Amino acid sequence: MATDSSPTSTDFHVFDTTLRDGAQREGVSYSVADKLAVARLLDEIGVGYIEGGWPGAMPKDTEFFARARTELPLKHAQLVAFGATRKAGVAVAEDPQVAALLEARTPVVCLVAKSDVRHVREALRTTLEENLAMVADTVAHLVAHGRRVFVDCEHFFDGYAADPDYGVRVLEAAFGAGAEVGVLCDTNGGMLPMTVGRVVADVRARTSGKLGIHCQNDTGCAVANTLAAVEAGVTHVQGTANGYGERAGNADTFVLIANLVTKMGLPVVPAECLPELQRVSHAIAELANIAPDDHQPFVGGSAFAHKAGLHASAIKVSPQLYNHLDPAVVGNDMRILVTEMAGRASVELKGRELGVDLAGQGDAIGRVVDQVKVLEADGWSFEAADASFELLLRAQLPDAPPPLFELESYRVSVEHWGNGLVVSEATVKVHVDGERIIRTAEGNGPVNALDNALREALVDRYPQLAGVALADFKVRILGWKGGTGATTRVLVDTTDGTGEWTTVGVHDNIVEASWHALVDALTYAVRHR
Amino acid sequence: MATDSSPTSTDFHVFDTTLRDGAQREGVSYSVADKLAVARLLDEIGVGYIEGGWPGAMPKDTEFFARARTELPLKHAQLVAFGATRKAGVAVAEDPQVAALLEARTPVVCLVAKSDVRHVREALRTTLEENLAMVADTVAHLVAHGRRVFVDCEHFFDGYAADPDYGVRVLEAAFGAGAEVGVLCDTNGGMLPMTVGRVVADVRARTSGKLGIHCQNDTGCAVANTLAAVEAGVTHVQGTANGYGERAGNADTFVLIANLVTKMGLPVVPAECLPELQRVSHAIAELANIAPDDHQPFVGGSAFAHKAGLHASAIKVSPQLYNHLDPAVVGNDMRILVTEMAGRASVELKGRELGVDLAGQGDAIGRVVDQVKVLEADGWSFEAADASFELLLRAQLPDAPPPLFELESYRVSVEHWGNGLVVSEATVKVHVDGERIIRTAEGNGPVNALDNALREALVDRYPQLAGVALADFKVRILGWKGGTGATTRVLVDTTDGTGEWTTVGVHDNIVEASWHALVDALTYAVRHR
Repeated sequence: MATDSSPTSTDFHVFDTTLRDGAQREGVSYSVADKLAVARLLDEIGVGYIEGGWPGAMPKDTEFFARARTELPLKHAQLVAFGATRKAGVAVAEDPQVAALLEARTPVVCLVAKSDVRHVREALRTTLEENLAMVADTVAHLVAHGRRVFVDCEHFFDGYAADPDYGVRVLEAAFGAGAEVGVLCDTNGGMLPMTVGRVVADVRARTSGKLGIHCQNDTGCAVANTLAAVEAGVTHVQGTANGYGERAGNADTFVLIANLVTKMGLPVVPAECLPELQRVSHAIAELANIAPDDHQPFVGGSAFAHKAGLHASAIKVSPQLYNHLDPAVVGNDMRILVTEMAGRASVELKGRELGVDLAGQGDAIGRVVDQVKVLEADGWSFEAADASFELLLRAQLPDAPPPLFELESYRVSVEHWGNGLVVSEATVKVHVDGERIIRTAEGNGPVNALDNALREALVDRYPQLAGVALADFKVRILGWKGGTGATTRVLVDTTDGTGEWTTVGVHDNIVEASWHALVDALTYAVRHR
Repeated sequence: MATDSSPTSTDFHVFDTTLRDGAQREGVSYSVADKLAVARLLDEIGVGYIEGGWPGAMPKDTEFFARARTELPLKHAQLVAFGATRKAGVAVAEDPQVAALLEARTPVVCLVAKSDVRHVREALRTTLEENLAMVADTVAHLVAHGRRVFVDCEHFFDGYAADPDYGVRVLEAAFGAGAEVGVLCDTNGGMLPMTVGRVVADVRARTSGKLGIHCQNDTGCAVANTLAAVEAGVTHVQGTANGYGERAGNADTFVLIANLVTKMGLPVVPAECLPELQRVSHAIAELANIAPDDHQPFVGGSAFAHKAGLHASAIKVSPQLYNHLDPAVVGNDMRILVTEMAGRASVELKGRELGVDLAGQGDAIGRVVDQVKVLEADGWSFEAADASFELLLRAQLPDAPPPLFELESYRVSVEHWGNGLVVSEATVKVHVDGERIIRTAEGNGPVNALDNALREALVDRYPQLAGVALADFKVRILGWKGGTGATTRVLVDTTDGTGEWTTVGVHDNIVEASWHALVDALTYAVRHR
C-alpha cells in the first residue's frame, strides 16, 4: 500500500471535492481554467487531496487532468481522479470508464461503489455478489497499475439501516483488493450526529481499514456529522469549499478545517495555512460566481462582526469574552474594531506585499484608507483586484505618474439587424500627450468593441500594449434595486504572456463599469509590467 | 409555577426568537407591522413561544407589544417579552427596565442573566453574589406579578469551562425564585455537539428544573448542538427563522422543527403545521428583505433538487432511494434539474412538475431532448430557468401558440459624453399582429434601456405587461476564448407581484443574450401567468 507523501496529512486526510461533488451545485459551471485556479487555491490551505473531476465521463474533466500535469504544481495536495467501479458483467480491463481513470495519470483514484442493497438491486440492477466483484476487480486493477485507491461507499448510512452487514462486506472487498481508505458516505444527507457516531463506531469495530466520512447537509448537520465521525475514529474527511454541492450542499471544507484545528486540536493542515482560509474562501466564491455568504462560520464577512451597542467598550477591552476565537487565526477580522488604525495597518501590509515602500507616507496611507472606504461602500471590491488597488495606492504617492490619456468621450452600440446579424461597434475619442485621437472598432460584444477601440487609440504611443490581451472577464450584479436596474461590478483579468493581473470597475451601467476595469488593466500593463 | 397552556408544547417547548435575537442580524430592520406579520407566520407553524422584543429598551418593541394585544390573536403560541435582570445595587421595584417588562403584559417573560464569572466581573462589574441576587429578585418580582418566567443564562458554556459551578448556582437562584425554564446559552457560538451534550448531562444531574438550549452558529453546528442538548435532556429549544442572527446566525427554527419531528420522532408542533414550513420560511425572508437561501436544508428551493442525468429513471421509479425525506412533509417539492445529461425520463418528470401533459407526445419529448442537448452544449442552462424550459417544451406541442411579436431590428447605444454623463438608449422595431411598431427608451444601462423599449412596444397589445417588472438579473461569462470575447449567459427573474419566474439567454454578445431572456420573460408573462 502506498504511503501518504503529503507533509501534513500522513495520519489525517483532508480531502476536498469542490471540483467534483461540489460542482453538482446548481448554477455552478467551471471552465478548465477556473478548475485549475480553484485547485491552486485549495493547495494554499494545505488540504491533503484534491478531487479534480471524473475523467472520461466529462470532457472538461479529461482536459483538466491533462493540463494539470504541466500547469498544476501542487505544494501540499495530491491530485485525485474520481470514477465508478467497472460495469456489471464487463471485464475491468475492457471498461473504457476505468481506462479513462488510468489515463488521467493521478497518484490517487477515488472510486464510487454502491453499498446499499436497495441501490444495488434497484438502481444498478445487478446482484449483491457481482457488485462486490466489481469493487474488488476495479480496486485491484488500479492498484496493479500503481494507483493509490480510495473507495466512496455511496448511501452507506441508509444502507446500514436497511442491512448493517452489506456495507461492511463492500468495505472488506475494497480493503482486500488494496484500497487504502473506505469512505462512509451520507449521500442523501439525512443523518444526525448521534447516528453517524454510532454507525462509525460499529463499523470500526468490524473492519481494520482506514475509514473516511463524506456528509451532505440535508439536515443542516454536515459539519457536525463529520466531526462526530472523527470522534468515532475516522481519519479522512471530505468537504467542499464553502459547502458547495447538490441540494443543501456538502460539509464545508473551511469550517471543517477551522473546527478540527481550533476546537479539536487536530493539526490537519500546516500551521501557516490556517490564516489563508478566509482569502481562499472568497476567491473560490468569485471563481464560482457565487456571492460570498457573509454569515458563513469562521470566514464570512460578518462571522466576527458585532453590532456596536451596549458592549462596544467591553468588547474593546476584552474581545476574548465576546469572540469564540481570535478571528486572525483564520484570516478574518472583528469588524467592529476596524477603525482607521486597523485600516492603516492593512494598507501598509498590502503595500509591502506589492513592493510599494510606504515608509514615511502617513498622509498617503490615510488618503488610501478613506478612498477605499468610500469605494467599497459603493460596491467596489479590491480583494480580487490587486492591480487596481496598486494603481489606487501609487496614485497617492508623491511621484505618481500622470494617467496614460484623457478621455473626451466614447460611444458603443449593439445592433440586431433585419438579417439576424448582431453587430457591436465602439468609437473612443482620447487625448494622448496633447494629441486628439479618434478610433472606431468592432467586437463581438460591447465591451470587446470598446477594448479594441481603446487599444487602437493607445498602441502607437504605448507599443507594449500590442502584446497584452484580456484573459477573463467576470460580471457580478450587486444590490438589485427593482425595475430601475442595479450596480454592476466587473473584474477583468489581463495577460502579457508572462503574467496575469486583475482590475475592477463598478457602475450602474455595465459598459461604464467595464471601461473602468479596462483602463486600469492597460494602465497597469504600461506602468508596472 | 404556571403550567404551559399551549396545546402542543406542554412537555416540549419550541421557542422562537426571530423578532428579538434574530433581529441582531446585520441589515435586518423590521417595522412594527413587519413584526406583527412575522409573529402571525410563526404561529402558523405551531411554535409554543414567540419572543417579540425588548420592551423599554427599544421603542419599536414597546409599540409591538401594545399593538399585539389587539392585533395578534395567536392560535398556538404564547407571546414573550425579553429583558434583563435588575441593575446591580437597584431595588427591583425601582428598575424602569423591569417595570417596562410588566407593562408589555405578556403571559411569559424571558430574562437574560449573566452566568459566566468573567462577564459578571468584567462586563457587569459587580460581585458574583450580587448577580445571584439580581436573578432571584427579578424572577420573584415578575412571578409575584403573575408572569411565567424563563431565564436565558448568557455565556453558559464558556462560563462552565471557566467555573463549572457558578452557572449552576445561577440556575438554582432562578428556579428557587420561581423560574420555569433555565436556558443554557452558547452566546459566542464556539461549542461543538460533544461538549454541549456533556455539559448539559452534567448540569441536568445537578439541578432539577426544566432546561433549555440556545445556540449560535459560529462553528456551523447550531442545529446539531441544539439536538445534542435535546438528546441530553433539554425540553426547550430556541431558534430563529432561517437562522437569522448576529455573526453566523442562530439555530434555524425550521430546520430544528423538521429534524425534531421527522428524524427524532418528537411531535413538537401540531402535525398539520409541518407542511407550512417552506411557505413560512420564504414569507419571513420576504419580510426581512433577504433573498431566500436555495440551499437551506428542508425548505430551500434546491433542498430536494436533483441533477437528474444518469439516475433520472431510477429516481422516477424509487424517489425514496434518492431523498432523505418526502419533500411534501415540509411543504417542499422534488425539483428535477434539466441538465446536459437530461434524458427522456427527466423531461417527462419535469413536464409533470410544470403541469404539461406529455402523454402520447413521444415525438415532442424526443425533439425537446435533442434541443436541450444542442442548447446546453452552447452554454444554455435550464436548471435555474424553468420558465424558458416550459416555453421550449410547449413550443413542441401540437397546440403551440405563435410568438408575441416578430423582431425586425433593435439598436442599443451607450455613450460617455464629454461632460462625464453616461447615457443608454435603445430602439426596437417589431411587428405585432401585422402592425409595425417602433419605440425608443432610455435606461441606466443597455439592458434596462432595451427592456423599457420592448415593453413600450408591446404594452398596448398586451396590457398585462404593465404589471410585470424585472426582479433580478444575473450574468455569467462562460468559456472565455481569449482576446476575441466569450459566451455570456444571462438569467432574468421577473415578477408580476404574485409570483416570480426565471428565463435564460445565451450569446457571444451580452446584449443579445439579455434580449433572449427578456423576450422569454415577457412571453411567459402573457401566455402562462
